Amino acid sequence: MNQFDVIIRGGIVVTATDTFRADVGIRHGKIMTVANILTDGTKIIDASGLLVMPGGIDSHVHLAQPSFDGPAMADGFESGTRSAVAGGNTTVLPFALQPRGASLRSSVVNYHKEADGQSYCDYGFHLIVTDPTPSVLSQELPALVEDGYTSFKVFMTYDDLVLNDRQLLEVFSSARDCKALVMVHCEGYDAIRFMTERLEAVGKTAPYYHAVSRPESVEREATHRAISHAELTDVPIMIVHVSGREPMEQIRWAQNRGMKIYGETCPQYIALTSEDLKGLNMDETGGKYVCSPPPREKESWEAVWSGIKTGVFQTFSSDHCPFFYEGVGGKLNDKARTSFRWVPNGIPGVETRLPILYSRGVAEGRITVNEFVALTSTNHAKIYGLYPEKGSIAPGFDADIVLWDPNRKETISQRLMHHGADYTPYEGQQVTGWPVMTLLRGKIVAEEGKIVGSKSDGRFLKRRLSPYAMPGSNR
Amino acid sequence: MNQFDVIIRGGIVVTATDTFRADVGIRHGKIMTVANILTDGTKIIDASGLLVMPGGIDSHVHLAQPSFDGPAMADGFESGTRSAVAGGNTTVLPFALQPRGASLRSSVVNYHKEADGQSYCDYGFHLIVTDPTPSVLSQELPALVEDGYTSFKVFMTYDDLVLNDRQLLEVFSSARDCKALVMVHCEGYDAIRFMTERLEAVGKTAPYYHAVSRPESVEREATHRAISHAELTDVPIMIVHVSGREPMEQIRWAQNRGMKIYGETCPQYIALTSEDLKGLNMDETGGKYVCSPPPREKESWEAVWSGIKTGVFQTFSSDHCPFFYEGVGGKLNDKARTSFRWVPNGIPGVETRLPILYSRGVAEGRITVNEFVALTSTNHAKIYGLYPEKGSIAPGFDADIVLWDPNRKETISQRLMHHGADYTPYEGQQVTGWPVMTLLRGKIVAEEGKIVGSKSDGRFLKRRLSPYAMPGSNR
Amino acid sequence: MNQFDVIIRGGIVVTATDTFRADVGIRHGKIMTVANILTDGTKIIDASGLLVMPGGIDSHVHLAQPSFDGPAMADGFESGTRSAVAGGNTTVLPFALQPRGASLRSSVVNYHKEADGQSYCDYGFHLIVTDPTPSVLSQELPALVEDGYTSFKVFMTYDDLVLNDRQLLEVFSSARDCKALVMVHCEGYDAIRFMTERLEAVGKTAPYYHAVSRPESVEREATHRAISHAELTDVPIMIVHVSGREPMEQIRWAQNRGMKIYGETCPQYIALTSEDLKGLNMDETGGKYVCSPPPREKESWEAVWSGIKTGVFQTFSSDHCPFFYEGVGGKLNDKARTSFRWVPNGIPGVETRLPILYSRGVAEGRITVNEFVALTSTNHAKIYGLYPEKGSIAPGFDADIVLWDPNRKETISQRLMHHGADYTPYEGQQVTGWPVMTLLRGKIVAEEGKIVGSKSDGRFLKRRLSPYAMPGSNR
Amino acid sequence: MNQFDVIIRGGIVVTATDTFRADVGIRHGKIMTVANILTDGTKIIDASGLLVMPGGIDSHVHLAQPSFDGPAMADGFESGTRSAVAGGNTTVLPFALQPRGASLRSSVVNYHKEADGQSYCDYGFHLIVTDPTPSVLSQELPALVEDGYTSFKVFMTYDDLVLNDRQLLEVFSSARDCKALVMVHCEGYDAIRFMTERLEAVGKTAPYYHAVSRPESVEREATHRAISHAELTDVPIMIVHVSGREPMEQIRWAQNRGMKIYGETCPQYIALTSEDLKGLNMDETGGKYVCSPPPREKESWEAVWSGIKTGVFQTFSSDHCPFFYEGVGGKLNDKARTSFRWVPNGIPGVETRLPILYSRGVAEGRITVNEFVALTSTNHAKIYGLYPEKGSIAPGFDADIVLWDPNRKETISQRLMHHGADYTPYEGQQVTGWPVMTLLRGKIVAEEGKIVGSKSDGRFLKRRLSPYAMPGSNR
Repeated sequence: MNQFDVIIRGGIVVTATDTFRADVGIRHGKIMTVANILTDGTKIIDASGLLVMPGGIDSHVHLAQPSFDGPAMADGFESGTRSAVAGGNTTVLPFALQPRGASLRSSVVNYHKEADGQSYCDYGFHLIVTDPTPSVLSQELPALVEDGYTSFKVFMTYDDLVLNDRQLLEVFSSARDCKALVMVHCEGYDAIRFMTERLEAVGKTAPYYHAVSRPESVEREATHRAISHAELTDVPIMIVHVSGREPMEQIRWAQNRGMKIYGETCPQYIALTSEDLKGLNMDETGGKYVCSPPPREKESWEAVWSGIKTGVFQTFSSDHCPFFYEGVGGKLNDKARTSFRWVPNGIPGVETRLPILYSRGVAEGRITVNEFVALTSTNHAKIYGLYPEKGSIAPGFDADIVLWDPNRKETISQRLMHHGADYTPYEGQQVTGWPVMTLLRGKIVAEEGKIVGSKSDGRFLKRRLSPYAMPGSNR
Repeated sequence: MNQFDVIIRGGIVVTATDTFRADVGIRHGKIMTVANILTDGTKIIDASGLLVMPGGIDSHVHLAQPSFDGPAMADGFESGTRSAVAGGNTTVLPFALQPRGASLRSSVVNYHKEADGQSYCDYGFHLIVTDPTPSVLSQELPALVEDGYTSFKVFMTYDDLVLNDRQLLEVFSSARDCKALVMVHCEGYDAIRFMTERLEAVGKTAPYYHAVSRPESVEREATHRAISHAELTDVPIMIVHVSGREPMEQIRWAQNRGMKIYGETCPQYIALTSEDLKGLNMDETGGKYVCSPPPREKESWEAVWSGIKTGVFQTFSSDHCPFFYEGVGGKLNDKARTSFRWVPNGIPGVETRLPILYSRGVAEGRITVNEFVALTSTNHAKIYGLYPEKGSIAPGFDADIVLWDPNRKETISQRLMHHGADYTPYEGQQVTGWPVMTLLRGKIVAEEGKIVGSKSDGRFLKRRLSPYAMPGSNR
Repeated sequence: MNQFDVIIRGGIVVTATDTFRADVGIRHGKIMTVANILTDGTKIIDASGLLVMPGGIDSHVHLAQPSFDGPAMADGFESGTRSAVAGGNTTVLPFALQPRGASLRSSVVNYHKEADGQSYCDYGFHLIVTDPTPSVLSQELPALVEDGYTSFKVFMTYDDLVLNDRQLLEVFSSARDCKALVMVHCEGYDAIRFMTERLEAVGKTAPYYHAVSRPESVEREATHRAISHAELTDVPIMIVHVSGREPMEQIRWAQNRGMKIYGETCPQYIALTSEDLKGLNMDETGGKYVCSPPPREKESWEAVWSGIKTGVFQTFSSDHCPFFYEGVGGKLNDKARTSFRWVPNGIPGVETRLPILYSRGVAEGRITVNEFVALTSTNHAKIYGLYPEKGSIAPGFDADIVLWDPNRKETISQRLMHHGADYTPYEGQQVTGWPVMTLLRGKIVAEEGKIVGSKSDGRFLKRRLSPYAMPGSNR
Repeated sequence: MNQFDVIIRGGIVVTATDTFRADVGIRHGKIMTVANILTDGTKIIDASGLLVMPGGIDSHVHLAQPSFDGPAMADGFESGTRSAVAGGNTTVLPFALQPRGASLRSSVVNYHKEADGQSYCDYGFHLIVTDPTPSVLSQELPALVEDGYTSFKVFMTYDDLVLNDRQLLEVFSSARDCKALVMVHCEGYDAIRFMTERLEAVGKTAPYYHAVSRPESVEREATHRAISHAELTDVPIMIVHVSGREPMEQIRWAQNRGMKIYGETCPQYIALTSEDLKGLNMDETGGKYVCSPPPREKESWEAVWSGIKTGVFQTFSSDHCPFFYEGVGGKLNDKARTSFRWVPNGIPGVETRLPILYSRGVAEGRITVNEFVALTSTNHAKIYGLYPEKGSIAPGFDADIVLWDPNRKETISQRLMHHGADYTPYEGQQVTGWPVMTLLRGKIVAEEGKIVGSKSDGRFLKRRLSPYAMPGSNR
């Protein structure tokens, strides 16, 4: 019997800090050995000329989320995780959303039903808390954290999701008690409603006005507010999908004061702009780019890069939230044509996240390949309690690996995508660097754009408490 | 017939920018002439050794406000304005509060009834908007602005007064339309409620916990939020009673970005601290110092002075809001003994405002006497539409004058006060500089601590639009 | 005999804080009375429709300065002060420069010879210290301060003027001892030399490269350095001719820390740009705009305005430093054609200072007319020890007055100028607001562009100690 | 024959990002394999309960430097590197100092003579450039960079070392050309001289006044100046031994603007204060703590930690610069007793660097153990061109390893030290975490405080170009 089930041979191993030539020996789905030369393997994968990196962990994806009054999502677990592994990812963390009036637990149970046997990659669940009743906060939440749902998200906007400040404070305080990590969507609900109605009243209903209705100042204000609530309750929080300079500078300010405020940004904030929302001549094709927060001005890209390079942001996620553009229930549905307000908020991105960051970041010289690994995998694992099973290439870790061709040039196109949506907002963008093989716990699940794994490959991940959620210095 | 009804002879005239020796000639209540020597006067007032300054304008006082569920105020117009003129003031701007459900107009009508014939000094009204219905905003407010009520205040806290963000935005937007100046009380309602309940739950109910329940971060957050709303609606606002470094720095940040955000601070933030709220040994005597925002740490004084000296603050007001300390309905009432939450928020201060600023500011070398005049009179007149009748000493201005002894040393004491309250929070504080005579439109109304005017002397002031309320650079 | 020699009737009097309709009565060169109506005057000047403002004080002009190895200045006292009064000024403060090796006193004596009987307006002298020997610092400087030369300038660049850091510290320390106010030209000598030689080495010698050779970072660095020296020696300083955002923000930072650091800016930084230095097609006509610091990018104008509006800058001066453009010894001389390094640094501006600030500031709505008076007259008087003789309109002040037509539109042109130079860098700029009459101590010296005073009208001003030079809070 | 010469078994491997249980297999001085279990080793080292970390790299030590007019250093290579390996280090980077007038090359040659056969650990040389003649800059420096001396240091203070601004600019520019990394000692020479003479003049000569003579503002100013020069020449620089908030904030400001400015701090800035310089009662025992920049106030520690935690600082070095305290030529020599000016600047620290950072940082919860590795080893390797031979534990790296007991408590004492100096400034400080074994390229060189290697073990390291020295974004 061979010592290793699989050997990845001849590649350049890249971790969040190191880059070195080594072979990787895998047995029973785990990395056993990292060594100069390994020979004793049942299967040998030739990685010469490739980077051997930890599989992408996308800690911010929306799959199979219930629809309140809009169209259904374009991706459930099957197509969403298929797209994920095609894009070099091995773990996704979607959200189990609590509809108001429902219990958190029942939402989790339902969400497991969506996921079980339908996932090409591993997955854990963040919760979304929309109805923080006393029993939710004092009983359900601690029990679920205990069960491995160690992070949850709250919203400062959206009719069906928004929490008011009192609720946010109660939720933050409960998170502190049970050491869960809170993710916060920072946009001010009232401000957006106000702007939306003003714009609609003067007939400014095209998709572009989505961006006008929630300018950067609205995101900055909510970010400052969330930070202040975190200060009052002395609890660390993660500000998700930060879009530009103003909210970024709020996070930087808090970090410089010694606070545990974390930041996430996304591809759309370094590769799309609000101009895209204009479509062709302010028309409805701009609807393809409707997400929240919206992409900003092009100048804003540099601010986001500054946040990446100076450590303001720890994670780079997709905020994958796909909808069909055409057809019944698509972004272009009849209601959506009446106003940007009804265009579903969200774009697909789980499959293009790595190529976009690699290309704009590593290939164009803005970040190192190690920073790429940290931003796309390692930091997600550490922050969300998946470490040390996930997030690196070293003995004992799950053999979740992406083989990456740093020189491959591709043009992003819907033709190449595996997601459920009928378009990609990055259509036509040229990138350098592309995943050529994805291994999940030692098994090849995607190769050269083909899915070779099965939808029963993915496992649910019960997550540890986040070391980033330990309170102590925010006040 | 003499040329002048009154001549003020031999003093040093001080304006917001100039200091010079001159006689001041008054006729029909107006300053007619400022000259080296004037002789032809019916009455000659010897001002040698004294400063001749514009009478104080206190743009932030609460008189005769309705009580919702707490004790009545200690001052109506009669005692409040008596106290004002004794303290060197000639104009006060109290608030006509709209109870929810009531019309703004009826509140104004009622408030006039309180004031008419009951005022020792001139007065105008700010409105307080608590119920911004469409008709209030689109009809009443513009009409009242037209009638000379050109500023109004909104609250971000207090059960009976608080507006939510949507309401704030609507109100700001209406202010922009009718060119009214908005004053904002910036403290976060939900955060205070949250903290209060937490403190009460663990028995921390002494007056000192009032300060703990609304720390500086809560004021800072609301300040940032108000600024963001002003940015979204492109309307100038005045942040009132700023207590310390953190909210001050938010205003400075906005001003440095080119925004028209104004700031006011008060005596309690340079002369009291949160330690005072501890009373003698955490006892209820701390209740004497309960006001909102609460006084902060002593280090905070320097931050407030920095804001004064670098122009962050334009006005220095009293936020006079007096309650009885003892007796039925006083701060020490039975309910208030159960929790700081029920201690009425407010302290008397209209009479001590000028001596405290003069002493701590001018006598101790922090500001010039001209800055004193700007902070206590001229800027109030300009910002609130009373200029050029009020706020300076020059031909054409109302002869509203305080004669000030810059060298007089006094110890502040309830014994010296003319207000309705049964205590002063500044008891025992020693000051240098004291008003020795107050003239209202040429008539002596106070002299050496004695009231010599009549409660029918004061006139209602229909105010101009504020030049500070012109929109244009906040976005 | 009439009570007044002159009455200015019917105008709008403007001080640094007040604006009111009044007549001004003058006797023996002093303002005696400011009153609603005055009648008893020998001469009545009709000022209806005009602003009656304190005459401009230009605290930064170079006249008749010795030339080291360049061409002579285009203005001595005669033409320079003629230009000043034509532009609405009544006082100038040029510099008595100490050549190295010479005594300060002899420089002052010589400079008096240049000025005596040659000045159309009043004048005082700043010193320029270039050779701070022990005797200069411990003996000459205190004696000269005692004699009314209460401010002096030092340079951080220029071959013949530069002081090194050790000298700056010695000089700052001596200024503290004798309570003189130090003005600092902040640009880094070594950096400019370095850049100049690099540029010359690659043939980049056109006037435009003057701007490239001393970018904003070089000015910012020197500004930070000067502030640090002021901190170490605990002495207030005035940073002169600040050109843009980066040095401005250094001063703001220091002021926000409580330091007594003052700032001056000039017309060239809100009305010229480095593009002007390109001339017509990178040619030598750009030499007309060579001054130091150079004008910056157009975006920089807004930063300068921010500094003006938030109080970072107290004074707006011309830094008038005129040279001939054509002819022998002009900017276009043979040596200057070889490299921007030899183009004399300086532009004329004493005559256009007021119209440019009025037009861009008051007429375009950026500042009030009172701020205009503060920036052009009152603050100069207060900062440089001329107050309360100069700088306002009130009894006891010198009758130094400019009558200003706020609605007059003019196009600036060399044709209109009275200076010695053969061009104005503002040629063709259109302005709103123009001086129509200048009175020096009650005598009309300029009227409708005609000089009607005599060159013996100006008097030397022995200046008081600056209240702004009192040490105390810089460390 | 066994596969491995050495196996380190059962420890927890720690890299700059990862922590995992693994055995480490070494052959021919290199790490060959990192694996779950390894058995086939000639020598097995039991690391159970220990951390297996990359050996410390101390990129800032002074050994055997020539003395100009002071006492000799207490450490040459023999004792210095003995101390280094005892303290868990495997590489040091001391300085080859160019005396003025000498060539760089001859300094390097001489320095090799000091080091050859005298070093217990590996070593490379930084250069110190004191005499940047054209030939030094254009010929010697590029040749030496080519030969592996890829970084050099310049000084902004010290009589024998200081460069003026022009020289700094020339040197920075040359560094850009040959892609060397510049390290800058940022303190202002003239300011220190000025302060020193002032203090001496009033008899303030005790060691404590060393700290007074060079306050934080002097370091901040020089830091800003160095950054500005780096901006002008567009070259990355490393600001070494940053002592407190003010210089730290300058670096942060530059980094936030996108500049490649790096920062280093040292144990003395988180474990000593200026109070230590007072000795026992302002006596000369304070001389033990004289180093430059001096330790600051205790509050400053938090600022340094903020800089560490937010990524302002990349490296934590000792600035080991040891002198004898007693005896002929010691810090207490006759000259040094006359003034702090003559007390040699520097303290020993190479042996205590790791325990102090581990204890104050990791054990007290301020940083992770991975950050510890980054700050003490990996980042030094990457920044100074030693990567990927040094700085991590992975196949292909040199087997430079420290085995660390995270729970061992020790009290630092001269008794434990192996350096040449006769004291340690950290005497009596208690720490948690201690090196128990040091391996240099697979050979045990120190074990439980005993030196078991030989002084011929260390090799000279020809270093790569620093990837951190690539220009591009500083302007």
